[in-house]
Amino acid sequence: MPEGRRADARRNYGRILAVAVDEVAEHGANASLEQIARVAGVGSATVRRHFPSRRALLEAVSHKRIEDLSERARELAGTGDSRSVLLAWLDEVVDYSATARGLAAVLVPDSAEVDPAHVNGCAAALEDAATPLLRDAVRDGTVSPEAALADLLALIAGIAMATEHYPDPAAQAHRLFRLAFTGLGPTP
Amino acid sequence: MPEGRRADARRNYGRILAVAVDEVAEHGANASLEQIARVAGVGSATVRRHFPSRRALLEAVSHKRIEDLSERARELAGTGDSRSVLLAWLDEVVDYSATARGLAAVLVPDSAEVDPAHVNGCAAALEDAATPLLRDAVRDGTVSPEAALADLLALIAGIAMATEHYPDPAAQAHRLFRLAFTGLGPTP
Repeated sequence: MPEGRRADARRNYGRILAVAVDEVAEHGANASLEQIARVAGVGSATVRRHFPSRRALLEAVSHKRIEDLSERARELAGTGDSRSVLLAWLDEVVDYSATARGLAAVLVPDSAEVDPAHVNGCAAALEDAATPLLRDAVRDGTVSPEAALADLLALIAGIAMATEHYPDPAAQAHRLFRLAFTGLGPTP
Repeated sequence: MPEGRRADARRNYGRILAVAVDEVAEHGANASLEQIARVAGVGSATVRRHFPSRRALLEAVSHKRIEDLSERARELAGTGDSRSVLLAWLDEVVDYSATARGLAAVLVPDSAEVDPAHVNGCAAALEDAATPLLRDAVRDGTVSPEAALADLLALIAGIAMATEHYPDPAAQAHRLFRLAFTGLGPTP
């Protein structure tokens, strides 16, 4: 590709991504790709060339948040009581998922995914970063060994999706996650 | 409305609903309303006249399942150990939500709702029917008094949404719900 066209492509990518961030913040994971193309001033084909699927676009929109949450997991590891540390990190994931629209969608599998290598890329990055937190809590016997990080992230993603239209999504998401974490009823 | 036009309207309603049941089963809660109109052989305006919002259409699609689940709650009430009875009913809600696409969406609030009186109509019907089950379990001290039926239904709806694209949605939904019901970790 000649240098000029390469620079054009970079500009287009940045412009589409910036518009996508706004549109997903306003309309959630189902934001219109046509609308994104229109506002960015490019054709639908250009959007598809940079982001071959809705999933690819949502992953790009959520990239910074996934990095932030991964960094937080690394910061928190080993800083105190393992159950509290894990719960503190999960609470941050709940917070991000409930307030950053589109993030929950990339934490779970998506049938519309074109490239199987991309499936759960975001969830995998978070799982890697948080594995020491869960491992410590299970070692200390304070968290059930039944729960994998993928389960915890899927549960949080589902809670964020279900509470998206509550008057105060973050408050209801935290409430539901707390219920799930402590359990709805004592085991028999 | 003259008799002939009224009969036409009834036929249209039935035809649109039958097509909607198929389209939602295939594409989930985001099934295309334009496609439903096209397959039913009516205009988009006719679809909107019968179903003023996507939510109204999804509620009509889910009506029979909500009735079935409400009936099951009434049948199960008082038939055994209150915790097992509640859990058996909730497992049926998990099953329905994971396999009947579109049902999870009507168990939680929807910002796009036009008529506020409709908000959570389906959840409200289920809550009414299952209130005796939760009341018995809380009375027997086997389920946390913190959990309202609306919370349990929102949690199940979220789990169904998050697991929709897993290879075996029902198995993963049951797994996540069981984790949430028993709790992810012992309380400190």
